Amino acid sequence: MEPTYNSFAGQNRDRLTALSDGVFAFAMTLLVLNLAVPIAHPSEHASQLFHDLTMLLPHLIVYMLSFMTLGIFWVGQQTQLNLLQRSDRDLTWLHLAFLFAVTLMPFSTGLLAAYITLSIAVIAIGIYWGNIFLLGAMLFLSHRYAHHAELMQSSVTPAMHRAIDRRIFLAQALYAIGALLGFLNHYVSIGLILIVQLIYVIAPRIPGFDQL
Amino acid sequence: MEPTYNSFAGQNRDRLTALSDGVFAFAMTLLVLNLAVPIAHPSEHASQLFHDLTMLLPHLIVYMLSFMTLGIFWVGQQTQLNLLQRSDRDLTWLHLAFLFAVTLMPFSTGLLAAYITLSIAVIAIGIYWGNIFLLGAMLFLSHRYAHHAELMQSSVTPAMHRAIDRRIFLAQALYAIGALLGFLNHYVSIGLILIVQLIYVIAPRIPGFDQL
Amino acid sequence: MEPTYNSFAGQNRDRLTALSDGVFAFAMTLLVLNLAVPIAHPSEHASQLFHDLTMLLPHLIVYMLSFMTLGIFWVGQQTQLNLLQRSDRDLTWLHLAFLFAVTLMPFSTGLLAAYITLSIAVIAIGIYWGNIFLLGAMLFLSHRYAHHAELMQSSVTPAMHRAIDRRIFLAQALYAIGALLGFLNHYVSIGLILIVQLIYVIAPRIPGFDQL
Amino acid sequence: MEPTYNSFAGQNRDRLTALSDGVFAFAMTLLVLNLAVPIAHPSEHASQLFHDLTMLLPHLIVYMLSFMTLGIFWVGQQTQLNLLQRSDRDLTWLHLAFLFAVTLMPFSTGLLAAYITLSIAVIAIGIYWGNIFLLGAMLFLSHRYAHHAELMQSSVTPAMHRAIDRRIFLAQALYAIGALLGFLNHYVSIGLILIVQLIYVIAPRIPGFDQL
Repeated sequence: MEPTYNSFAGQNRDRLTALSDGVFAFAMTLLVLNLAVPIAHPSEHASQLFHDLTMLLPHLIVYMLSFMTLGIFWVGQQTQLNLLQRSDRDLTWLHLAFLFAVTLMPFSTGLLAAYITLSIAVIAIGIYWGNIFLLGAMLFLSHRYAHHAELMQSSVTPAMHRAIDRRIFLAQALYAIGALLGFLNHYVSIGLILIVQLIYVIAPRIPGFDQL
Repeated sequence: MEPTYNSFAGQNRDRLTALSDGVFAFAMTLLVLNLAVPIAHPSEHASQLFHDLTMLLPHLIVYMLSFMTLGIFWVGQQTQLNLLQRSDRDLTWLHLAFLFAVTLMPFSTGLLAAYITLSIAVIAIGIYWGNIFLLGAMLFLSHRYAHHAELMQSSVTPAMHRAIDRRIFLAQALYAIGALLGFLNHYVSIGLILIVQLIYVIAPRIPGFDQL
Repeated sequence: MEPTYNSFAGQNRDRLTALSDGVFAFAMTLLVLNLAVPIAHPSEHASQLFHDLTMLLPHLIVYMLSFMTLGIFWVGQQTQLNLLQRSDRDLTWLHLAFLFAVTLMPFSTGLLAAYITLSIAVIAIGIYWGNIFLLGAMLFLSHRYAHHAELMQSSVTPAMHRAIDRRIFLAQALYAIGALLGFLNHYVSIGLILIVQLIYVIAPRIPGFDQL
Repeated sequence: MEPTYNSFAGQNRDRLTALSDGVFAFAMTLLVLNLAVPIAHPSEHASQLFHDLTMLLPHLIVYMLSFMTLGIFWVGQQTQLNLLQRSDRDLTWLHLAFLFAVTLMPFSTGLLAAYITLSIAVIAIGIYWGNIFLLGAMLFLSHRYAHHAELMQSSVTPAMHRAIDRRIFLAQALYAIGALLGFLNHYVSIGLILIVQLIYVIAPRIPGFDQL
């Protein structure tokens, strides 16, 4: 009876975390490359430079939004991987699909920054939301699979599993509402997604919020 | 008797894995930089944006193909390094040559994406296949060398060695067939390579497929 | 009583250091991308090439300045994380905000390099200083929080806490003086910031300097 | 007696290796970005594409040369750090200066690739050699310092110290001869440097060569 390649492939959780940290680190730093406008054509006039920097403001806000998004999903993935006992090749590929969605973020972010002030911004918001949805969906599937395949530590309680699922569902519901508002007004839409991200970043100690 | 430099150089497997994870993480994230077209020239018209995004579709498909390719070879290298007992300078250089092939992937991918819709796509397919062949050849040589130089753990059975070799040969045979089909029709060629990658990613539980 | 997600999220100090090393490594290497001018338009004449290379000199000096800045803050963050007993989600987010400031450095650096020889350089100096201030402020806050939340090792003495705070305050005071001098003369301003960085890099064994 | 900040700063060898692996991984992958020419302007004609690819050949050779250079210095740094018992802030800064030279390699490489076919290539060769010299000088100084400050493991014999120094001196002498030949003929110059790198990569088992 020959062992299959897949029975001993992709079992190293530590390399999965190292690859993930590398992809997140590059994606986070790549976001800023869209902030390069006033460098290409330096001007002698302060008013021109201030104007150029003002034009960068929507880019900077979208960039901060995406940095927070990547931070939230990095913490989310870290928390899941921390609770793993071991890995296997199927879980590895679910996380590689998650990392694929991470590498798309600089593109979605650049698209959103380029179109945020235009009338057709809702298309860019839709693609941006699709990217966030993909991140959430892969994180949800990897948790489901790890639970089902008994890859998680025995110390993880059913209540912790429920907390992980609840967080993903609640966050995705809020993102979807934010994206749908883009059909009414795209500034309101981005504003709501920004507020949701800030709540997850700051995690205010207000009763009710701690269940998010 | 003076010790030679090479007798104590390049023995750290953990740094080899860390460098590998960094190179893979960066190459995977760089692929997406070719998706930047509609950001450079934002348009006020939804129809123009949809047209620009449609033009990106072949790029996105080639990008997904390359992400899967890098994922497959990352899992392959991880599996080999996991089974190592220790490293030496020769094995280090075989893996550095493997990483060199990894850094060429963004170039091969960009070339394939740029020419996939043109009549001379077969040249780009040939270069892309050459890149995949180089990845497979270096992985095969590093496994042969590690086996020969007795660098692998004693728990690795002859059947596991055969499974590693068989996987590389089968995959390379399928890639070569896919590339040769490019002389007939380049969409069929890319389609077959895409299907091969998907089988390796999904690893369907169908009798016969588990020996791939 | 259900556990909250945040009670078990973001506790892995090792992944925080891995992400930080990735972001710093990428930001440090990205700085050099602004040095690409004479490659884009190669010239047949040695005099033209020497002229192009001379035009790069202010870029190179600003790039070295930023590399030293990133090195100083990398050592500073490493020293703090080294003294941690454990991490939690709030500390993780303070360090993510610190890393956000790190990813802004290639932009601030490019801006400073582009405007250093122009009369309105003081604006670029102000933005560059703001970036350094943000780095120092986040490092200060993360130390305060880690101290307050009792996340640091019990071997850290009150005198070590004072040494960490004193270093951040002294450095930030010197940077602020350097930046304010930009209103008088921007070469003097950059020169002073450069000298401050060199003192922190070289750490001369002169009585008095060792308390910096 | 207050402890100085520097007495407990920068002591983590593992973070120094992680940062180094990140910088090397990024610099190695960045080299390939200069290979982008025929993608920007895709052509319908096979002859045009073959011509474009032929124009890339000098770039590809210089890129392989630089990849080997970075590989050689990565193995060299790894070997030194492997023999360390502990680190301190001065050694950390010597290695940060080494990493600064690493981040300059994509620039030196791009310059050499752009000018290799022109009559003034000797200037680009000189700058490329200066980059290699800086890498060797920092590696030599970091070894000297680690030896002097008793940071290395007690198992490192005087003969091993001599082997490390001898390797750096021999390599630098060969690089200097190669660069000086650039005043006669720049293809001979690059050819010699390429041969030196190949010898260090392949490490042929020929008597005499094993002392390199």
